[in-house]
Amino acid sequence: MTARASIVVTGTEVLTGRVADRNGPWLAEQLRVLGVDVGHVVVVGDRPGEVRAALDFLAGTGVDLVVTSGGLGPTADDLTAEVVGTWQHRPSEVDPELEHRIAAVVERLSARRNWRVDPAAAAAGVRKQARVPAGSTVLEPVGTAPGLVVPPAAGRSGPLVLVLPGPPSELQGMWPDAVADPTVQAALGARVELRQQTIRLWGTQESTLAVTLRRLESALDGLEVTTCLRDGELEIVTRYAPDAQPRYDALLAAVRDEYAGTLVSTDGSTVDDLVARALADGGLTVATAESCTGGLLSARLTARAGSSGWVLGGVTAYADPAKQQLLGVPAELLARVGAVSTEVAAALASGARETFGADVGVGVTGIAGPGGGSEAKPVGTVHLCAVGPDGTRERSLVVPGSRQAVRERTVTVAMQLLRSLLAGGPPA
Amino acid sequence: MTARASIVVTGTEVLTGRVADRNGPWLAEQLRVLGVDVGHVVVVGDRPGEVRAALDFLAGTGVDLVVTSGGLGPTADDLTAEVVGTWQHRPSEVDPELEHRIAAVVERLSARRNWRVDPAAAAAGVRKQARVPAGSTVLEPVGTAPGLVVPPAAGRSGPLVLVLPGPPSELQGMWPDAVADPTVQAALGARVELRQQTIRLWGTQESTLAVTLRRLESALDGLEVTTCLRDGELEIVTRYAPDAQPRYDALLAAVRDEYAGTLVSTDGSTVDDLVARALADGGLTVATAESCTGGLLSARLTARAGSSGWVLGGVTAYADPAKQQLLGVPAELLARVGAVSTEVAAALASGARETFGADVGVGVTGIAGPGGGSEAKPVGTVHLCAVGPDGTRERSLVVPGSRQAVRERTVTVAMQLLRSLLAGGPPA
Repeated sequence: MTARASIVVTGTEVLTGRVADRNGPWLAEQLRVLGVDVGHVVVVGDRPGEVRAALDFLAGTGVDLVVTSGGLGPTADDLTAEVVGTWQHRPSEVDPELEHRIAAVVERLSARRNWRVDPAAAAAGVRKQARVPAGSTVLEPVGTAPGLVVPPAAGRSGPLVLVLPGPPSELQGMWPDAVADPTVQAALGARVELRQQTIRLWGTQESTLAVTLRRLESALDGLEVTTCLRDGELEIVTRYAPDAQPRYDALLAAVRDEYAGTLVSTDGSTVDDLVARALADGGLTVATAESCTGGLLSARLTARAGSSGWVLGGVTAYADPAKQQLLGVPAELLARVGAVSTEVAAALASGARETFGADVGVGVTGIAGPGGGSEAKPVGTVHLCAVGPDGTRERSLVVPGSRQAVRERTVTVAMQLLRSLLAGGPPA
Repeated sequence: MTARASIVVTGTEVLTGRVADRNGPWLAEQLRVLGVDVGHVVVVGDRPGEVRAALDFLAGTGVDLVVTSGGLGPTADDLTAEVVGTWQHRPSEVDPELEHRIAAVVERLSARRNWRVDPAAAAAGVRKQARVPAGSTVLEPVGTAPGLVVPPAAGRSGPLVLVLPGPPSELQGMWPDAVADPTVQAALGARVELRQQTIRLWGTQESTLAVTLRRLESALDGLEVTTCLRDGELEIVTRYAPDAQPRYDALLAAVRDEYAGTLVSTDGSTVDDLVARALADGGLTVATAESCTGGLLSARLTARAGSSGWVLGGVTAYADPAKQQLLGVPAELLARVGAVSTEVAAALASGARETFGADVGVGVTGIAGPGGGSEAKPVGTVHLCAVGPDGTRERSLVVPGSRQAVRERTVTVAMQLLRSLLAGGPPA
């Protein structure tokens, strides 16, 4: 039988939407890949009654494991450890050994960061973080907060509660220890760890793919296939037990066959991965010339560690004089066809290539809006061009949506254009 | 008495973390400002049993209103309307008028987007979306999905359920109608709408501010003060009923007094707002020269509508030759002090100013990592300079964290430096 788990995310700042929760989705994903069925993610503020209500609810759904995140800080409103302890009928007490270890961490951090610290307040905070439910297992702190494995008290039933800190880096850093804990292992029970595969398409509608999936339905038994439009790509994620591998292989073959023209990758590679790999493997350099995307393409290309090996640089040419002087776009061309045109996109791409002495140049021009549109060139009109040693790719389109959406989607189109150019295949 | 509400977010793609939920936080914020106390946000997959379990749980906590998002699409796995109807003992039936209206929308959308549509499948989808619980109130679709106000069946008690679509633009577009609905108004009861104010500080530690807030504690009665570190700024959000205005004024005065040197804004303005306003009001233009931030500063400055009025452009000078040829950084200087230095940051700022003919130039150089660091210049070392007609601001620091964190934090430091320069106050 598949183990079942749910997640409680605590924190008023998360509940009220001031901070986006990253832990719930991350934990759900980890549990799912471990073969655990996730039922609910409950977000609650820092109020003991509401944390207890969430635990009661989840226990009532019969889950084997509840994972909590947050509420382990040094201040009084961080109360998860105490609330979970009481709920499991395990009163909390200070663990003196743990207190020493946390004190040492706090001292080191304070020294390194030059904090002005009130010693009494710091000691009280350390003591608070070292208070743990009797009989729980401590997971060593990644920051200053320990994690806790809190089983029901002897003679009681109910889910195991795994208490993890709120900062994502601490929670994720502690996860391997948490999963390795024997009590957690026992709660997760006999599971089959699932395989997960991702296929990406660019230019296929979700509804079109749905028709294919419906046709294959009987052959997909044992595969959990979800499709999702992400950043313009259609992402197909499939999870399955190892014995369903032949059926996944059949699905993959069908997709390869039917969508060869829009297939980006079958191994989870993103367009960013593919572009970086093609540039690095080909020993090619790249430079950009951007108008409406304002540097976002350059930022995306340089987001990757090691990108200084292939990115020479870029120009954001917002004003027309910059397009002329830095990138050699002829004033006559700008006057004749306007800055937002296929001709200027091509001139920008060539200009980037020449200005930086790069193998590949990418030019982007368009109207991000909300102002600046006309009947002939509505908001969202963008022209892109990628020029390399062996060819050129061009694309013109009208991108719907807000200024931000137009800019971001245009950068994605530029990445796909670059991928297509570097792959040497048919135009994107 | 304050009305109480909770939120159910449905969708397997949200539960599994493949798509980040934006509706829970947004709804919580809207409800909070309406003076409604939000208890829980529950995220569930598209499984009827789990949606029902969430509704049972929230009803058990005694809330007046449950708001759901998602699960209103045209396909069979979108089942929120049906599940909520059954839960409220209101069987669903097709509303023929609504069916006509949705069909018209679908037809219009399909024509505009050139979808290939199977007529039978489309009609089935429309019919599904027009099935609503008997006795519920329909909120007109923003996309194709109607919202629903579903009270308990006659003679039954429990919360009112407000059913809203999943796409954030549809949910947000429908919200004014939803709140105006008389049944929703009745569930929200007699409320005092809260005021919300935001103060931003740059360079004050959260723990330091906590000392001030503790000292003022007795004077803060009736104010709900939360502090949060966001993008390097310390954000103080205060919510209060109108009769607590004098106490908020006192808090504001105390913060102004004690944190004059780090105060960014007291009216909710972001550093981006302040920089844009100062450039626009001063009739000044700006240009950037970036190394480690790779175009992110330029992208941030141009994110705002109308920014072409003051941003002339920028150069991402990843390679040293680009720094020399495009921005006039002397080769001798690069050889002598290295690209990552205060001198080169200053030369980049001046170079950006001259190359683009801008009033203000900003230069950024540094080591974003993870490679490239040394003992003398560890990863995260960044140097920034902003030069304007009336002065210069410089800043050097070591930013902790990942490559992404270093890049993003450095851009924020650059924005603060620019704000400081444009305000003409003391260096940031």
